[in-house]
Amino acid sequence: MCATSSSGRVGLGDAVRGRVLFGGDYNPEQWPEEVWHEDVRLMREAGVNSVTLGVFSWAKIEPRPGAREFGWLDRLMDLVHGHGIGVVLATPTSSPPPWLGRLHPDTLPRDADGRTEWWGGRQHFSHSSATYRRHAAAITEDLAARYGSHPALTMWHINNEYCTYDWGDEAAGTFRRWLRDRYGTLDALNTAWGTAFWSQGYGDWAEVLPPRRAHYLNNPTQVLDFKRYTSDMLLECYVAERDIVRRYSPDLPVTTNFMPMWAGQDAWRWAEEEDVVSVDLYPDPRDPFGAQEGALVQDMTRSQARGPWMLMEQAAGSVNWRGVNRPKPRGLNRLWSLQAVARGADAVCYFQWRQSRQGAEKFHSGMVGHAGEQGRTYQEVKQLGAELRRLGAQVTGRHSVSRVAILHEWNAWWAGEQDGRPSREVEYQQVVRAWHRALWEAHITTDFAHPGHDLSAYPLVVVPQLYLLTDPAIDNLVAYVRGGGTLVCGFLTGIADEDDRVRTGGMDERLRELFGIRTLHEWWPLDPGEYAECDGLRGMLWSEEIEAEKAEDVVAHSRYKGGELDGLPAVLRRGRAWYVSTLPEPAALRELLAGVAAEAGVRPVLEGLPAQVEAVRRGDLLFVLNHGREPVTVAVPGEYRDLLGERRVTDTLELGRYGAAVLSP
Amino acid sequence: MCATSSSGRVGLGDAVRGRVLFGGDYNPEQWPEEVWHEDVRLMREAGVNSVTLGVFSWAKIEPRPGAREFGWLDRLMDLVHGHGIGVVLATPTSSPPPWLGRLHPDTLPRDADGRTEWWGGRQHFSHSSATYRRHAAAITEDLAARYGSHPALTMWHINNEYCTYDWGDEAAGTFRRWLRDRYGTLDALNTAWGTAFWSQGYGDWAEVLPPRRAHYLNNPTQVLDFKRYTSDMLLECYVAERDIVRRYSPDLPVTTNFMPMWAGQDAWRWAEEEDVVSVDLYPDPRDPFGAQEGALVQDMTRSQARGPWMLMEQAAGSVNWRGVNRPKPRGLNRLWSLQAVARGADAVCYFQWRQSRQGAEKFHSGMVGHAGEQGRTYQEVKQLGAELRRLGAQVTGRHSVSRVAILHEWNAWWAGEQDGRPSREVEYQQVVRAWHRALWEAHITTDFAHPGHDLSAYPLVVVPQLYLLTDPAIDNLVAYVRGGGTLVCGFLTGIADEDDRVRTGGMDERLRELFGIRTLHEWWPLDPGEYAECDGLRGMLWSEEIEAEKAEDVVAHSRYKGGELDGLPAVLRRGRAWYVSTLPEPAALRELLAGVAAEAGVRPVLEGLPAQVEAVRRGDLLFVLNHGREPVTVAVPGEYRDLLGERRVTDTLELGRYGAAVLSP
Amino acid sequence: MCATSSSGRVGLGDAVRGRVLFGGDYNPEQWPEEVWHEDVRLMREAGVNSVTLGVFSWAKIEPRPGAREFGWLDRLMDLVHGHGIGVVLATPTSSPPPWLGRLHPDTLPRDADGRTEWWGGRQHFSHSSATYRRHAAAITEDLAARYGSHPALTMWHINNEYCTYDWGDEAAGTFRRWLRDRYGTLDALNTAWGTAFWSQGYGDWAEVLPPRRAHYLNNPTQVLDFKRYTSDMLLECYVAERDIVRRYSPDLPVTTNFMPMWAGQDAWRWAEEEDVVSVDLYPDPRDPFGAQEGALVQDMTRSQARGPWMLMEQAAGSVNWRGVNRPKPRGLNRLWSLQAVARGADAVCYFQWRQSRQGAEKFHSGMVGHAGEQGRTYQEVKQLGAELRRLGAQVTGRHSVSRVAILHEWNAWWAGEQDGRPSREVEYQQVVRAWHRALWEAHITTDFAHPGHDLSAYPLVVVPQLYLLTDPAIDNLVAYVRGGGTLVCGFLTGIADEDDRVRTGGMDERLRELFGIRTLHEWWPLDPGEYAECDGLRGMLWSEEIEAEKAEDVVAHSRYKGGELDGLPAVLRRGRAWYVSTLPEPAALRELLAGVAAEAGVRPVLEGLPAQVEAVRRGDLLFVLNHGREPVTVAVPGEYRDLLGERRVTDTLELGRYGAAVLSP
Repeated sequence: MCATSSSGRVGLGDAVRGRVLFGGDYNPEQWPEEVWHEDVRLMREAGVNSVTLGVFSWAKIEPRPGAREFGWLDRLMDLVHGHGIGVVLATPTSSPPPWLGRLHPDTLPRDADGRTEWWGGRQHFSHSSATYRRHAAAITEDLAARYGSHPALTMWHINNEYCTYDWGDEAAGTFRRWLRDRYGTLDALNTAWGTAFWSQGYGDWAEVLPPRRAHYLNNPTQVLDFKRYTSDMLLECYVAERDIVRRYSPDLPVTTNFMPMWAGQDAWRWAEEEDVVSVDLYPDPRDPFGAQEGALVQDMTRSQARGPWMLMEQAAGSVNWRGVNRPKPRGLNRLWSLQAVARGADAVCYFQWRQSRQGAEKFHSGMVGHAGEQGRTYQEVKQLGAELRRLGAQVTGRHSVSRVAILHEWNAWWAGEQDGRPSREVEYQQVVRAWHRALWEAHITTDFAHPGHDLSAYPLVVVPQLYLLTDPAIDNLVAYVRGGGTLVCGFLTGIADEDDRVRTGGMDERLRELFGIRTLHEWWPLDPGEYAECDGLRGMLWSEEIEAEKAEDVVAHSRYKGGELDGLPAVLRRGRAWYVSTLPEPAALRELLAGVAAEAGVRPVLEGLPAQVEAVRRGDLLFVLNHGREPVTVAVPGEYRDLLGERRVTDTLELGRYGAAVLSP
Repeated sequence: MCATSSSGRVGLGDAVRGRVLFGGDYNPEQWPEEVWHEDVRLMREAGVNSVTLGVFSWAKIEPRPGAREFGWLDRLMDLVHGHGIGVVLATPTSSPPPWLGRLHPDTLPRDADGRTEWWGGRQHFSHSSATYRRHAAAITEDLAARYGSHPALTMWHINNEYCTYDWGDEAAGTFRRWLRDRYGTLDALNTAWGTAFWSQGYGDWAEVLPPRRAHYLNNPTQVLDFKRYTSDMLLECYVAERDIVRRYSPDLPVTTNFMPMWAGQDAWRWAEEEDVVSVDLYPDPRDPFGAQEGALVQDMTRSQARGPWMLMEQAAGSVNWRGVNRPKPRGLNRLWSLQAVARGADAVCYFQWRQSRQGAEKFHSGMVGHAGEQGRTYQEVKQLGAELRRLGAQVTGRHSVSRVAILHEWNAWWAGEQDGRPSREVEYQQVVRAWHRALWEAHITTDFAHPGHDLSAYPLVVVPQLYLLTDPAIDNLVAYVRGGGTLVCGFLTGIADEDDRVRTGGMDERLRELFGIRTLHEWWPLDPGEYAECDGLRGMLWSEEIEAEKAEDVVAHSRYKGGELDGLPAVLRRGRAWYVSTLPEPAALRELLAGVAAEAGVRPVLEGLPAQVEAVRRGDLLFVLNHGREPVTVAVPGEYRDLLGERRVTDTLELGRYGAAVLSP
Repeated sequence: MCATSSSGRVGLGDAVRGRVLFGGDYNPEQWPEEVWHEDVRLMREAGVNSVTLGVFSWAKIEPRPGAREFGWLDRLMDLVHGHGIGVVLATPTSSPPPWLGRLHPDTLPRDADGRTEWWGGRQHFSHSSATYRRHAAAITEDLAARYGSHPALTMWHINNEYCTYDWGDEAAGTFRRWLRDRYGTLDALNTAWGTAFWSQGYGDWAEVLPPRRAHYLNNPTQVLDFKRYTSDMLLECYVAERDIVRRYSPDLPVTTNFMPMWAGQDAWRWAEEEDVVSVDLYPDPRDPFGAQEGALVQDMTRSQARGPWMLMEQAAGSVNWRGVNRPKPRGLNRLWSLQAVARGADAVCYFQWRQSRQGAEKFHSGMVGHAGEQGRTYQEVKQLGAELRRLGAQVTGRHSVSRVAILHEWNAWWAGEQDGRPSREVEYQQVVRAWHRALWEAHITTDFAHPGHDLSAYPLVVVPQLYLLTDPAIDNLVAYVRGGGTLVCGFLTGIADEDDRVRTGGMDERLRELFGIRTLHEWWPLDPGEYAECDGLRGMLWSEEIEAEKAEDVVAHSRYKGGELDGLPAVLRRGRAWYVSTLPEPAALRELLAGVAAEAGVRPVLEGLPAQVEAVRRGDLLFVLNHGREPVTVAVPGEYRDLLGERRVTDTLELGRYGAAVLSP
């Protein structure tokens, strides 16, 4: 929810107060208190105005069951407050202390093979454990009671990266409860799950289990419901803690940090329960399309927030969980941070302030790295802090507006990406990323939307792939086109209903009619490295044996050439509704979507932009970002002031390697 | 057993009654009853004359322990009967209802790591569970009592694709019982397993376990016996149900469907317990040698049946369990179905009639696909049904005769393909397939045979690889050659005795003498992509350091060139006994075997056949099948009538892409 | 410990008595007694003078709990003694009989997932099981009592290839005991493990567990301590049995066989508890650098032994545990055996004497292979036995002296090679091997040393990589350079302290000062196949963003060219201290180290040696070994007698394929 949300909920605005929040996770439990004083000095020099405390503090606050050791946190809160730094206070419930697991093994999750996840890492808690929830609530309550009115406090952060699953016995019980709520009767469950096949009919609720290890494929709707249920159980955990802190801090926003495009949480639903939507973002510096991955996650987070949002975590340098962990080259941290601001972030934060010397993340970079104050990483952080301070007043609270929406939905992902599907080569995330990349390369800024949203404000809506679509969603899409919208739709869309039941005809009839498909005979998934040649493009991953309606307004924009599908339509349009039955190669998909966009009246942010240069408008500011390592000249018709360089720009902008400008009219 | 079996057992003939059985698994539990009426209409239009019912019906018949709900099945049996369609009735014991696992966890299998296989998929039953067997027998009994005399019933089908393993505690008990039966005493077991090595001597039967997870390699004979035992336990399950249904339907044949060349069942032994041998067959439409894989399985099944056999399952289009699941291109379903008939099938059936809309196999094709009646798949099924109707009277019951036998045996496979072997690159199935392919490409039809069979009717016998050979089997081979037969034998043959004990000299002395091998010094397995150059051929996978006997009749047909083995024999012959110490590349193996065959008086079915064209004789019919996508002209000296095209053929036959002809003199 | 050890412990000398020990593991339990007589005949013909008995004899000696069946072993000991063959007697405790696991499941290890390792393989014992230890001690006691004074006995061998882990509950108890011994208090443990991060603070010893399966990364110091603990627990097992046999045979040496460069045991610590250091060595005959791998292990074992050592196991031909198991080509077994002697071995032994016909290792070669007496393998063994007999008196007890030490240490390995590290591509073993290879190819013989050792005797010390270095070790290195030594140090050295705590500045300050590094800004690990171009060399795996001290004596020997690191130092030297921030390609690393060595006064063993020819001095003998398959001419200035060829050599030596000479002045 943005600051100006009409929902009446508090938003990011009050925490921000005209500044871009800048800072990060601060875990000073790791250091002697004398280091804290060095920390706040370096924070001030770097322009840090926000730290997140408490994420991993449970064992320090409650070293024994029921103990409360708040003294250190009192001193810490006062210290940072004394230096003008605000606090995002986290409930420490993502990593319970060892005693909880030892005294209450029922708090530990079990995987599908029955294996326990022990303490010694983090996130070793079961969302379904009543014991865990009770202990989590107790410490949340005491933390909120103590600090809910602390003057340093600007925001509550619940838990951290909710991401656990549980197939154990207590989870089996909550799964049954969730299923009863969803279906009411066993008959309804049997119908929804299609248990008539493979002799899976349930006669007693006690027979229903999470989809544990099986001899052969698990029931797919059971798997789908288990994913829905898991997201909902975690959300229950979040809501329970949120409601506690709200009682003590009714005017402060509450958030929890999403992982970027993470399968475990239906972020559309979760965002509705948050005051501030925040995300963690870690593109690989080695990835030539890392900037586009960042843009995608930023677009998605902004869309979930419906306004300004918070970049809760990024890395100042390298992470430690890839095979080969590269640092960010000089300038990249600044550039990607400004990209987030361009795309709506009002907070640019990091995991973590000071790089650990011990523990599992000691090779994950910090704002202050192992090289310390003299290290390049900190020096660049300091420079960025100064720049964000300059920008603050002019960007915060402003909106980035897009005229194109990409539809994305978790149920479709969960249902579509299971074992026993037509092609394991088709990965939902990669398909969504390919379509977003095409628009990003065409310099067209995109929102993300849920297929049930009101889409009428968008001249163009694209659906990379939505295997599962509910009836209302399909009606929404059809109505959108009838109402004048332009829709481009990729393959494997509208196949299944809400229960993962394949729709009659193999693809929803309303959609077939919309696109002019008479019969969808067969899918022809492609091998890795195999291509489907078509007029004007080459397709990857997938192709289809489609028989088009014989109607004047049904046009094969491109046809397959050669092979079994020779002459059949590859890209089909009926008026403003387009169907793309393959994944065109990047340049072809870009050209296709840019053409359709132009027809729909959607133009690039700037014309004639060089490749690797991104332009984004936020409010009346124009961000221009050079993601290349070579200097570029960019045509920017008009007169501007560059808020970063404090220079005047007339018609032409020079940007160095990883250079950026924020142009104000 | 074929219809004319002298064993006195019933066979396929009565079910067939001059028609090729055409149809498939029919699981109408998935659909409302109004769909059933549409089903029978479409079946009739497609010429369907047989459906398999009940495969996954346990939970529907027995939704609660002890319940019996037969009404729906009564109506269904009557409905199909009323439309002249026969029923193959399956016992539903391959997929127990959830209540069985919940009330009786002892029915669930455990893997070698101790992990349970839960319900929620299928085949979650332990072959060793007394509880499972009791419940399976009870429902079989009641099913047989109710439908054993139903006029629609033509055949019984027991369970489905027996394929489960169990390492759990109850299985440990049945394993011990099986071992006691085999060995009598622990001393005999200790001797057979070679437990003197690694300190594994057993002093009490209670110490003997299935080969569970171990620190390092398991005892190989224990592993071998566990595979023998598993096949036998599953066979016990089969026999128990078979004996029940026979009591109610003494005149009807009983079968269970094999998976094609599946490691879990010794199909030679199983076939002896069946009235009809049936198999499931799913070559990959993408595989350029898919037709050869089909031919191999068909040859093997025909050989196990010693006459006509049943293709119980194939896919009308795609399957759903490969990484990339391709549909069958236009014409391929017909072509491969006719190939099965050519090679002895009297039944061409599918999994499944109507493609599921829910459940784990909804992306496995059906005879009626998601595209429905208008879809290409059903249209082609209908065409095929009409053609099979025309052929029926002239092919059913006829035999396909071969003059070459390929030896294949499960114990050799089980013993030879274990951890700790000379080369993990050597896969038994691939070696067998390579040899079969050589003969298939040479247009020579082959039977498969067990090494203990009477081989005297075959002018040529080939052994791709039989790592384990019993003494009688070796004597049989030697006697075969002495009796005038020609034997070609691949590497890794005759190494181990029945207990997987390496024979003195590293290869059986009788065989060494037969081939003229004085000393087998060392094996030289090859890396992937590595070749052994020889005179006239290149070898793959394997080479050997052999010292040949110095005798006049011992001839090195080909010698290694270069490398460590330079000048040593690669292919050795002594009279009519050939030894091939490497795997020649495909063309070389084809040429070698075709040459030996010619010398043995075995000629191709037709001379001068183009590549990709297969010719097979069944009775007095000549099937000619074009597996290529280009039209071909085939020389067929003589005058024929083509039963498919209803055309006369004189000396020359034109076949289009995937075209087929069935020529009658 | 070598024979002349000043420690007062017995050494190898008395067992050797001027002969190279030649023989191997002898497991005659596998054969009827009549084969034993054939065995000793073949042994005598082959010059075998030592056999290792009892390794896998537990079940045969104690077939039922408490039984003792020694008769067969009495006969065996007497038989071999009667033929003048000495016995290395092993305690049979590496493979307990099945009854132990059945009656005492607490003796079976559990893995990190909780899965049991069952009997049926070998090494299914938990080092922490009090029951196991009690039974192991009892049989060791009785064995030692019976044979401790047998005239055939020359040495005791404890257990076999100690290599087990245990994460189970009894192990949790011994882990806690070990941790209490190490840390004293929980506070100290919490500090060492850095449990303040991720909320892992322990409040009760009972909460501490082995690092079992966790949701995300385990605590790295916990993992490190678990590896230390495992090595120590196994060592406790060894010491307990050693102390028993010493009571009965106070004058005989005791050993246990290491696996070559095996991660599970800190061999520096273990060697201190052994009278004789022995190792098993199995380079892949396919590996073009197999001889170098052998040299590395031999150098390391010699260094651990500080004198002559024992090659306990090698293969006369192939092993059975690789994917593709190649035999040794003609001559290679002899060549590699002589290489071991050149590098200090006084014993050349094999696993095993007669190749098994049954059990899990039947495809592991023996000195007598499946081909028997006529087989090439045995014939070559016999030839080698004769040659070793000739050499014995002149080599045994002599030392091989090196002037270069390579530092290697287990704690550095354990700490550095964990999940969550900068690059999974960096494998410690491969880095060590690359540096050893460079010196081996430069014909410079190397010792290995522990970083805490007195290094002053070595003009040159190289550190391929020591991620963890204790403070004393760092001081030792600095003092070494100050004392006139030359040090070359690879990347990722000196990063962490003893608790795996990253040192301030990201690399130890003393080392940075030593090498002239002002700031270590960032690590830039490289992708597989990616290179860092530098002046005069190409780097692999790794590169670094280093800022050098601006001081006259700090010189960038090579700089990065192009890319982000352009112009920064790649190889830095300050006086005699060199820092190499990447892994130079083989030729470049060889050239670099040869240059530094020359500067330090270290020359190759012989000048102008062809590639593939190795020269090693042992005492006053010069071994020259041709590892190539082509004949070579080697310049050997001076006059020699070749002890192998019984020829005189003047200035020039001709060696055939795999040829060897042992030149005596």
